[in-house]
Order: sequence, then structure tokens, then C-alpha cells
Amino acid sequence: MRLATLRSAPATVAVRIVDDSNAVVIPGFSDVGDLLRDPGWRELALVEGDAVSFVPTELGPVVPRPEKIICVGLNYAAHIAEMGHDRPDVPTLFVKFADALIGPNDDVEVAAANAETLDFEGELAVVIGKRAHNVNEADAAGHIAGYAVINDYTQRHFQKRTQQWHQGKSLENTAGFGPWLDTEWVPGPELETRLNGEVMQSAPTDDLVFSPEHLIAFISRLYPLNPGDVIATGTPAGVLHAREPKRYLRDGDTVRVGIAGLGVIDNTTRVI
Amino acid sequence: MRLATLRSAPATVAVRIVDDSNAVVIPGFSDVGDLLRDPGWRELALVEGDAVSFVPTELGPVVPRPEKIICVGLNYAAHIAEMGHDRPDVPTLFVKFADALIGPNDDVEVAAANAETLDFEGELAVVIGKRAHNVNEADAAGHIAGYAVINDYTQRHFQKRTQQWHQGKSLENTAGFGPWLDTEWVPGPELETRLNGEVMQSAPTDDLVFSPEHLIAFISRLYPLNPGDVIATGTPAGVLHAREPKRYLRDGDTVRVGIAGLGVIDNTTRVI
Repeated sequence: MRLATLRSAPATVAVRIVDDSNAVVIPGFSDVGDLLRDPGWRELALVEGDAVSFVPTELGPVVPRPEKIICVGLNYAAHIAEMGHDRPDVPTLFVKFADALIGPNDDVEVAAANAETLDFEGELAVVIGKRAHNVNEADAAGHIAGYAVINDYTQRHFQKRTQQWHQGKSLENTAGFGPWLDTEWVPGPELETRLNGEVMQSAPTDDLVFSPEHLIAFISRLYPLNPGDVIATGTPAGVLHAREPKRYLRDGDTVRVGIAGLGVIDNTTRVI
Repeated sequence: MRLATLRSAPATVAVRIVDDSNAVVIPGFSDVGDLLRDPGWRELALVEGDAVSFVPTELGPVVPRPEKIICVGLNYAAHIAEMGHDRPDVPTLFVKFADALIGPNDDVEVAAANAETLDFEGELAVVIGKRAHNVNEADAAGHIAGYAVINDYTQRHFQKRTQQWHQGKSLENTAGFGPWLDTEWVPGPELETRLNGEVMQSAPTDDLVFSPEHLIAFISRLYPLNPGDVIATGTPAGVLHAREPKRYLRDGDTVRVGIAGLGVIDNTTRVI
């Protein structure tokens, strides 16, 4: 089952995707996050509502306002090496706020004063479907609603100018998230990030130091995870900041992050 | 004007405090955060509602569910030195989630598995009263609803075991926040933290490297701040972790953070 958040004046609606051009409105829910907060979401998502055209450019962030977006800093061995870090014993966690999210085909909009050292991080996102509080890794799968694609878009100077990365990780309107939530997909297939068509990142999504289930168990012992919350599981090797010579995203650059079987997000940076 | 969130079965209510034992319910608002999200909150807070007894032990976190709690890592010169850091050019920011908040007289409840290297950080909290987006420092005061006291309660091992502090800064049910929001208080008076009665931290609240107005302007250029959002402005010297020999909070220890004119929070750690 694929669930999406579709912009439909005056607001948004949660839809179930039928095929490449058709969807069905899930009655009573303004977006996929709103739907997931209903404990009966798996059944409610199958209720027959109005048929609508499915136009990818009308997609909003699949969960527009997660209460929590927890990002994992270092989770693919090759990326850990390229950033000059040791392989970690525990996950490195930081936070992105919901204001950072944009739809899967929206433009990234960066204020001119912030528009330096911009970089992509293509990632697999896990979306929570059932409250997780002190869960064991063996039980964690039952708390996953499904998976989506996210770009943990980063301003590297802001990330690095203090010890804490958050201020470079949460610029508003930068992080593509979607295109939809797939409730049946299983990690393994390749993640690929392209910059203006050129492949920049490529890695299997089951090559994580810390699996989605491990991350849910780990985080749920710090604080609860609620339906609609998002864990961005970390980025593989190939980010711009790690290249020699260094290069960064400029106005007009398009970053396309795709995960096989899970869909594609495609966002062009605009300096405003 | 002093506004508080009072527990009153079956939920909570926003109240205006009249004196040490009396308050008035502000009709229609479940807590101070709910009130602040109404643009007319300053006038609505003065509407006459039911008189209620004001019992400090019935206070909840003054804003129970801020969308954002942004903590400043290093902001008092003496604390920067004791933690071995250089004086920063820009604020260090990290995030605490709302699940961490407890009322001003509630017990801290720490799961046994997390109950090591626990520490306090007494802080001045700024609460946003009007959306702040790309504001200048000169205009920032108009976006402040008022001030309160917060304990940026910390698990030092979790804070330090990776490069990112967040996982040691957001344990659920640890951070006392209140006792109320004071809309007229002005920074300057002394902050004092006592552990079981012994003074541990003492500093004037206007001795910040980055003022509340500077922080609002700085953050509002990254992403918007909304009514009810909280900035914890950093802690002065005197935390347990910086002492020789090191010591940490144990079951039964009581931490009292007071700011002159702004009230006191008093939380006892319980290992559960």
C-alpha cells in the first residue's frame, strides 16, 4: 500500500495511490501523519473515498508535520570513512524540525544569506506507525508504518562552525520527503543520488551499521516515538563536502534521490 | 502578569496567577502554550474566569508541548571555561523534545538503565509569544512572551559518547519547566541552583554571551519560531560534571533552580 499527502485546495488530503495517475481520497484525514495518528489507520486507509487524479507535482511532504524527525549521523561504513570518523558503537543522533520539509518535487528555497556550502544527503526514512516506548529490537518492526525517501539537506558551514550539527541541518524548506509512504517495502534495494543527472551516491539500503529496528529500540529507551515520527537513517558515501576539490549546490542544481521500489524525490535548489 | 498551566482533572487549564494561593482560569485554553497560539493572548489572559486555588504542586510544565525547544550549549563565559571550550562566535544549538518536560515540582523519573552520570543545568528560558521569522535583533523583544526557569537536565555519558549531545539532553520526564511564565520580568537577576540545599550555580542572567534577542534573531534566520516555542539560554558554571572529583545526581537528590523575581523549580530525581 502506498499512501501520500496530496495538495488539494484549500488544504491537503491523505490518499491511497492506485496507479501512476490515480488515487483515492482517504476520508477524514488531512495528510498521512494525521492518518497514522489514528490507531486504525491500516484499515481506514482502505476505505473507498473519492477518486482523484494522482499528479506527482501536487505531492506535499508525505508526513508534513512530524512531531520528531531524528537523523542518524553516521550509519554507512563508507560515508563514515569519507567524513574522517571512526565506526561508532552507538548511533549519533541529531534533530531536524518539520519546517525543513518540502514535497518530493518542490523547489528547495534557501535565503541568500544562508546559500553557501549547500549539500545533499540522500537517505532512507523510516516512519513510525505505532507508539514505540522501551521496545526491544525484536519487536521494533511492528512499530514501523513504512518507508520513504528523504534528503537530509545540509548547510556544511553552519553544521561545522559549532560542535553541534543541528543549525546546519534544519534550514526551512530544504528537505525533500516522499514521494509516498510504502507500507510493504523492505530495506535492501539500492539508494541512488544524482546531481543534475550525474550519479553521486549509490549504496544498498541494508548496509547500515544500525538497522531501522535497532534505531527504534535505541531511541525508544530515551523517549517515546509516536505515529508519524521519522527517523532519517543516515547517508552513504558521496556527499559533495567530502569531494576533492570540494563543491557545493548552487542555484538551479537538481538533486534526485531514488530508492529502488520506493520512489524518487527530485528537488531543485533556488536561492531566494 | 504570571501565567501558568494547572492540572485540573480531567486535563489542564491555563490560569492567571493572582497571588500565592489564588488564580483565575483563562476560559477556553488548556495550557499556556495553547493560549500563546492565539494572537490575542495578551488581552484574553485578562478575561475573568473561574477563581481557583493556586497550589504549586499542581502545576504542569508551563508550556507542556512546545513545537520546538532549542537549547544553547555554551553561553556563560565561566561555564564555557569549566567545560574546556573556547568562547564562541555563534551560538551552539541543540534540541530537547517536549517529552523531556515535567512540572516545576514534579519528580524527575529516570529509567534504571539510563540512571548514570545525571546532571543538572539551571537555565533561563525564553518563551516565544509571536511568530519570529527573519527578525532583526532590534525587533526581537516584540516576539518574547516572557521568561521562565528550566533545568536542562543531562545524562553526561549519553551526551558525550557520540559527537552530538542530543541523546543525553532529551531523556523523557527529566526537565523541570516553570513555575510560570512571567510577561514583565527582565533578565539581570541572579540564577541559583541548589543541590539538596547546597548552592551549586550562581550567576546574573544578563551575563550571557548571546542575549535572548540575539538568539531569537539568529535562530529565526534558520527557521521560524512559533508561539510557545522555548529557547533554553544556556547554563552558568557549577554543573556536577565539571567538578573534581566528578559526582552525579542519585535517586533522592533534589535540585532547586531559582531565578530572582521569576520563581523556583524544585525536582527530585527518582530512579524507576
